[in-house]
Amino acid sequence: MRLLQRLGLQRILLNKKDQRLASSIKLMVGRKPLNISLYRLALTPAGLGKENERGHKISNERLEFLGDAVLGSVVAEYLFQKYPLRDEGFLTETRSKLVNRESLNESGIKIGLRTILQDYFLEKPFTASKSLYGDMLEALVGAVYLDRGYTFTKNFILTRILLHFDIEGMISTTMNYKSKIVEWSQRENKDIDFKILEINGNQRYKEFVIALVVNSKEVATGKGPTKKKAEQEASKNACETLQIPT
Amino acid sequence: MRLLQRLGLQRILLNKKDQRLASSIKLMVGRKPLNISLYRLALTPAGLGKENERGHKISNERLEFLGDAVLGSVVAEYLFQKYPLRDEGFLTETRSKLVNRESLNESGIKIGLRTILQDYFLEKPFTASKSLYGDMLEALVGAVYLDRGYTFTKNFILTRILLHFDIEGMISTTMNYKSKIVEWSQRENKDIDFKILEINGNQRYKEFVIALVVNSKEVATGKGPTKKKAEQEASKNACETLQIPT
Repeated sequence: MRLLQRLGLQRILLNKKDQRLASSIKLMVGRKPLNISLYRLALTPAGLGKENERGHKISNERLEFLGDAVLGSVVAEYLFQKYPLRDEGFLTETRSKLVNRESLNESGIKIGLRTILQDYFLEKPFTASKSLYGDMLEALVGAVYLDRGYTFTKNFILTRILLHFDIEGMISTTMNYKSKIVEWSQRENKDIDFKILEINGNQRYKEFVIALVVNSKEVATGKGPTKKKAEQEASKNACETLQIPT
Repeated sequence: MRLLQRLGLQRILLNKKDQRLASSIKLMVGRKPLNISLYRLALTPAGLGKENERGHKISNERLEFLGDAVLGSVVAEYLFQKYPLRDEGFLTETRSKLVNRESLNESGIKIGLRTILQDYFLEKPFTASKSLYGDMLEALVGAVYLDRGYTFTKNFILTRILLHFDIEGMISTTMNYKSKIVEWSQRENKDIDFKILEINGNQRYKEFVIALVVNSKEVATGKGPTKKKAEQEASKNACETLQIPT
């Protein structure tokens, strides 16, 4: 099997459905799969997973864990190289803005995961989670990594995933509100503080509820999957409430 | 310069001090540096950084950001391969136990960062942060990655960093207390819950204070850099208070 894979001849062992899947993967990733079972697994959401003969639930969640880490590493290097003069605070913040459920979901759909899921995997109805395509995209990155190695995966991420992200846009728009509030507080000589009101959710999906407190008075709140996002949201709402021009 | 590096002849351009540094790096990493300035930067803690002619502070913090990501990715794959039957919750939890300030600090000292710092960089007194060697270790990983690529770095991490970690020990000892409490609550038919009391610290160093609540009554609290750790600590304290045998 391994030898056939290396020779690019594993196709002769694939059934028609897998052959079509392999072609779709090639369009998405740039090369045909060496080990198609990795991709089949990556494209099996938790809700669709079956148990194997030993009772282990088969789904893409382990691959998602791996892909998330590889994606984090590639994006870290990308930002490190792209912004040689910015400090690590900026890099950390920008990465968490860039790699979030929402943007991953969108790019997942854009590179074609919805179509693939409908064509190959939807034999039974299931309830899609809100982050279905983002999770699948991470799992796909994990599969590509195991199948083709780090350098190939890095290239795949840079040329086919990151291009869907409006990086400059994200940096400038989300930077805005919080810095507006800080400038305003200095100009007006006010004390401001962000206060966490609630943290909801589980280990993987969090929701922070954060209040902006001006001179000990709560003026606005914001919600978001990270503290930063919730703070931005609270700042944005505060700009409206306090009529600070943005 | 690049050509000399490739030919392994960059030594002739190094002064005596850098030549000694290059030899020390070889002992730590396994190969001589191709680009020694990366390692010099990695071994310059924030407290010792100078400003360059354009007013940018030069320190290892950007490399630390990169190294942290690469380390996260390598450890993710390591656990993914080592525990093929465990789910992503276990993998996530084990990684955060494994890669924490404390264990990174210890391995940093063990692979020789304290000695290197004293020999080459301590020209002026400075206040070392608690996580000095852990931060330097991450920055070193970042430097090795830029200097030698992913595969080499992965090998460096697996053979020279992870071997200092007592993985099985960490999994079993830290698992213990929380699962003891859960078992106890089921046996005794009690409602238990973990409640976040405080989150202190900044973006990079957090401290969670978490209470274990049994039948709506707080019985113990715990602190830690992650929620998991604080929960473990609270569980441990609760085992003592409630005299649950461990």
